[in-house]
Amino acid sequence: MDLVNNRKILLREHPAAEPDDSCFEIVTDRVPRVGPGQAVVRVRYLSVDPAQRIWMNPGGAYGFEATPGLPMLSLGVGEVVDSRNPRYPLGAWVGGKLCWQQYAVLTEADETWVLPEEADPVLSLGVLGMNGQTAYWGLFDIGKPVPGETVLISAAAGATGSLAGQLARIAGCRVVGLAGTAAKRDWLLELGFDAALDYRSPDLAKLLDEACPDGVNVFFDNTGGPALDLALTRLALGGRVVLCGAIASYNDNGKPVGPAAYRMLIRQRGVMQGFIVMDYADRYGEALTKLVGWVADGSLKHREDVVHGLDNAPEALRRVLRGDNEGKMVVAL
Amino acid sequence: MDLVNNRKILLREHPAAEPDDSCFEIVTDRVPRVGPGQAVVRVRYLSVDPAQRIWMNPGGAYGFEATPGLPMLSLGVGEVVDSRNPRYPLGAWVGGKLCWQQYAVLTEADETWVLPEEADPVLSLGVLGMNGQTAYWGLFDIGKPVPGETVLISAAAGATGSLAGQLARIAGCRVVGLAGTAAKRDWLLELGFDAALDYRSPDLAKLLDEACPDGVNVFFDNTGGPALDLALTRLALGGRVVLCGAIASYNDNGKPVGPAAYRMLIRQRGVMQGFIVMDYADRYGEALTKLVGWVADGSLKHREDVVHGLDNAPEALRRVLRGDNEGKMVVAL
Repeated sequence: MDLVNNRKILLREHPAAEPDDSCFEIVTDRVPRVGPGQAVVRVRYLSVDPAQRIWMNPGGAYGFEATPGLPMLSLGVGEVVDSRNPRYPLGAWVGGKLCWQQYAVLTEADETWVLPEEADPVLSLGVLGMNGQTAYWGLFDIGKPVPGETVLISAAAGATGSLAGQLARIAGCRVVGLAGTAAKRDWLLELGFDAALDYRSPDLAKLLDEACPDGVNVFFDNTGGPALDLALTRLALGGRVVLCGAIASYNDNGKPVGPAAYRMLIRQRGVMQGFIVMDYADRYGEALTKLVGWVADGSLKHREDVVHGLDNAPEALRRVLRGDNEGKMVVAL
Repeated sequence: MDLVNNRKILLREHPAAEPDDSCFEIVTDRVPRVGPGQAVVRVRYLSVDPAQRIWMNPGGAYGFEATPGLPMLSLGVGEVVDSRNPRYPLGAWVGGKLCWQQYAVLTEADETWVLPEEADPVLSLGVLGMNGQTAYWGLFDIGKPVPGETVLISAAAGATGSLAGQLARIAGCRVVGLAGTAAKRDWLLELGFDAALDYRSPDLAKLLDEACPDGVNVFFDNTGGPALDLALTRLALGGRVVLCGAIASYNDNGKPVGPAAYRMLIRQRGVMQGFIVMDYADRYGEALTKLVGWVADGSLKHREDVVHGLDNAPEALRRVLRGDNEGKMVVAL
């Protein structure tokens, strides 16, 4: 392969709050000639995930850490365009930590994997990737929904929330979603949610009581913040709070506000439990088989919110942190 | 039985904060002649429990509700001094909701039970009663301690905390207690705690790191407040937070401060779970057998903090809410 330019967005410094453009630096260098054992991947789609915000903090999170001076850490998929490594055949699609750059130079040690030929690269980032796995394990292994129960989802129109809600429907539950715009709420109803509520509504408590007359058996929480606090006050006896994420406080490097109503866990004999999807890596195949089946038979719908161009990645990240996305946010390069 | 005076302390109104004397009213009436099916119990010992504070709120808590105009709700033990009910033989000791009064008139419907002849009435209020059961089920069923793990206890010199810590030692764990005075901390070390820390110390975080070098596997929380927040930041991977009580906020009828560090439950794949000991009523016998054995062989020590006189009950309650007690607070009448 001839030497080509490689545009990259480096993390310049740890953000103090919302990661504005001053946190990043766009540079261009050349893709080096591949050495023995290396391969070059042309990055095609970048996954935009709220968790990237906490990877940007000093020390990172869950084993993911974005390091100042290096291309911003991101999951993505791309095609092998040059290779001196039999593990990465030319033309193969590769997924993993490809970062905000046009080309990624891989070695054996990198956390990447070759996609099966039949895999759709974009879906492998979302419904059939991290988001699908997160929704699946969080809901079924931590939330343990029982048919007829009420499952409440925050950031319900997000990449993970929209899947978790549909999985809860598949499990025979009544599903209520929280989302910030009328368009998102309409979409949730299309997906089969029984109700979709505006989490910013001054009447949210009343709306929630109407939508969850028997309380909340499972709260699948992607946001934390006031939604978590309110959901706790409506927790049914033996209710489970699945702590999946805390988008509401990711931009707050100081002390986030804790859930004042946590004492409801005592009154209602409730459980609040966190999880990290990577702990289920050994069982991804198990979930994937089911997710593929539900996507194929139409019972699990997905939406990709695609923006084009590497330079738009920082704004795409800010958008998911603000909740200005519907479904899976992806940057197409 | 001749008619005798019955001094009572009524709940006058729901307290707004600490229940000061204006919340109560001392009255004296006469013990009525027992009707068919009734019995009169001379109250001998009243149990003083932090939970009484939340029973005093409108609606009460956990099925316990102190009603304005009635004698303040309290567990206690006493002797049957008059009876027209074969369930309550003369001279028998009775435990249950006897309330702040010298004499309680019982009917079948009252939540009371006759103590077995061999039972020590005072111990039946604490180590062999509600506190022992609470420590046992909270630690073993919710906390699930594994030998070698570190168990942290808040309000560790309290009636429940002092037992939970000793049970954790019996389970083969390293045990660290939080307590507010040097005398309490000395006592905890006598009880076999591996360390006892001043929860008010400005260096608490550092002390905790020294005492729990591998983090906290189980936090048995009686207080909430800053102790809960700090313990969460030190939670070990897969750690369990047993929500037993929240004394730190019982006098705060407004919004208590929630644990800002709750997100550690995600990072550490932790669980925070509440429980109510009454849910284990069917299994009290199982725990009691073990508790009796451990008390008998000296591996479970207990201390009763006894004040004398019904009129001192309100101050005794304020003392447990402030943490000015060592072990089980009891009012002897």
